[in-house]
Amino acid sequence: MPTNRQQILDNRPEGEAVAANFKLVSTETPPLQDNQVLVRHHFMSLDPYMRGRMNDAKSYAKPQPLGEVMQGGTAGEVVESRHPKFKPGDKVVGFGGWQEYSVVDASQPGSLKKVDTSRVPLSHYLGAVGMPGVTAWYGLVKIIQPKAGETMVVTAASGAVGSAFGALAKARGCRVVGIAGGLDKCAYVVGELGFDACIDYRQHADAKSMSAALKEACPDGIDGYFENVGGYIFDAVLMRTNAFARVALCGMIAGYDGQPLPLSNPALFLMNRIKLEGFIVSEHMDVWPEALAELGELVASGKLKPRESIAEGIESAPEAFLGLLKGRNFGKQLVKLA
Amino acid sequence: MPTNRQQILDNRPEGEAVAANFKLVSTETPPLQDNQVLVRHHFMSLDPYMRGRMNDAKSYAKPQPLGEVMQGGTAGEVVESRHPKFKPGDKVVGFGGWQEYSVVDASQPGSLKKVDTSRVPLSHYLGAVGMPGVTAWYGLVKIIQPKAGETMVVTAASGAVGSAFGALAKARGCRVVGIAGGLDKCAYVVGELGFDACIDYRQHADAKSMSAALKEACPDGIDGYFENVGGYIFDAVLMRTNAFARVALCGMIAGYDGQPLPLSNPALFLMNRIKLEGFIVSEHMDVWPEALAELGELVASGKLKPRESIAEGIESAPEAFLGLLKGRNFGKQLVKLA
Repeated sequence: MPTNRQQILDNRPEGEAVAANFKLVSTETPPLQDNQVLVRHHFMSLDPYMRGRMNDAKSYAKPQPLGEVMQGGTAGEVVESRHPKFKPGDKVVGFGGWQEYSVVDASQPGSLKKVDTSRVPLSHYLGAVGMPGVTAWYGLVKIIQPKAGETMVVTAASGAVGSAFGALAKARGCRVVGIAGGLDKCAYVVGELGFDACIDYRQHADAKSMSAALKEACPDGIDGYFENVGGYIFDAVLMRTNAFARVALCGMIAGYDGQPLPLSNPALFLMNRIKLEGFIVSEHMDVWPEALAELGELVASGKLKPRESIAEGIESAPEAFLGLLKGRNFGKQLVKLA
Repeated sequence: MPTNRQQILDNRPEGEAVAANFKLVSTETPPLQDNQVLVRHHFMSLDPYMRGRMNDAKSYAKPQPLGEVMQGGTAGEVVESRHPKFKPGDKVVGFGGWQEYSVVDASQPGSLKKVDTSRVPLSHYLGAVGMPGVTAWYGLVKIIQPKAGETMVVTAASGAVGSAFGALAKARGCRVVGIAGGLDKCAYVVGELGFDACIDYRQHADAKSMSAALKEACPDGIDGYFENVGGYIFDAVLMRTNAFARVALCGMIAGYDGQPLPLSNPALFLMNRIKLEGFIVSEHMDVWPEALAELGELVASGKLKPRESIAEGIESAPEAFLGLLKGRNFGKQLVKLA
């Protein structure tokens, strides 16, 4: 059996996460038992939610256990199979973690899914046609419920969730305004992703300045907001909401390190009769087939052109992950393993 | 025609509202034209939302105009009528404002409503069986959507909205916990209104202390919250919410004077997948008949025993209103005019 290199969580962050929280180890993959499948990972996904799980805090998900392989989504190829539905060469996505191989009990529902790579490249099943894409879909379609002509705003617009959100909202006839960090990302968001406008938050370091930029980019106000970041940008967006605006809240990356992240003026929820809903996409598995079908079609038809930041090799995963938390990635952050 | 004494808004508050913002004036009521009705007000309602309208700020409602009679709900008796559906002696509720008489164009839909005082005293149509009661009903039934066995929390529990909220939630099989200011109010909330527990916020001056009190009063966590106050109590409640809790937001009395009213940890909306909705009950007139029918029955059957603070005479309205903003009232604040 092949040697398998793994990144384990060695110790928990105190404040900011650092590379020394992780440790690279090697093991031999065990022989397969009945119903098990050996998968060689071609790509592993790095996502902001992983930072939350590194803390030993009460949250919606259990903490990542210490001394175990970092959990996360993976896309790869079946190498060996003792399950009748899988055969060597099948392209599959699963939740194999930060390692080069995984042994999966394929009889567990949802543990491994075959994917069609004829129209959608394998890696996109970890991004636009995977969990991040469905996250955008759920927030837009189920919470925000946009109407044609309304204005939608999304933070981290050049990322996996933000870019999918933009394509989905454009397909529904909305004006879509992104917020991203840097002129190059903003140029991509408008030029390649087709957003109507994009605001570089690095040029607007407080709520007042951001609110002025939003006023210009959203002349008719804001009807829907997909919140990925938190902090002063959330404050600024609320200042520009229209009556009956909806807010889908799926991440607050600015708060993962434990610093306080207050909201300045929650009275705006009342004044503008806002609906807000926090959600975790894994609790809404019923919508995944519908969402993935739409997202796959958007990618296959070229209407959604997701960008990827690809680090090479399992040893690069910690630094790539820390870069993601600081916004150094450009598009969906992946690690290529084969 | 009778002489009519009125309270007008003379100037706007700078920070805290003061008695000198109002001015008492006298006029003669004009002769009636076709479809007009002259109403003598027996009671006028004082409500926290009026404070918001005293500011010249963008909000859901237009500011109270300067130099005009303060707006507000009234209950009274028809003195003279040139509308075929109203006759002298009819008991009516309307939006007559801070004055002893009003002349109402009864052909305007919703401007004047006859009420039955055989089972429900007239004054309660300004409280439990009026706007405050429907506010509680909408927040509970339409936003929180409680299930039997869930735990509901409401601030200002001894007030008009809070007491109605408690009775409505008890009728749906919920555990109901109130928050109120003072031991006398808490004793009334539990003893007379039938809440399961009540926390005196004066004994818990910060979020940490309030959160500990809530933990004791809500051993199974909080599933629904009706927010009337804002500030650190809101923070403390969020710390005790269960997954999928719902928050109905209809007032933030602590913020009307313009001081900042931040929310410490909005990331809890995500962690507990909370739904929050701000609302204004006057935008949901379709539910009023259903809500008023249930509220009237609760009062008539003695299951809801609303308490009232009654000031005497139009000249007492400003001080009574300022006392309401400081929580000096005990139950629904009214002014008796006849």
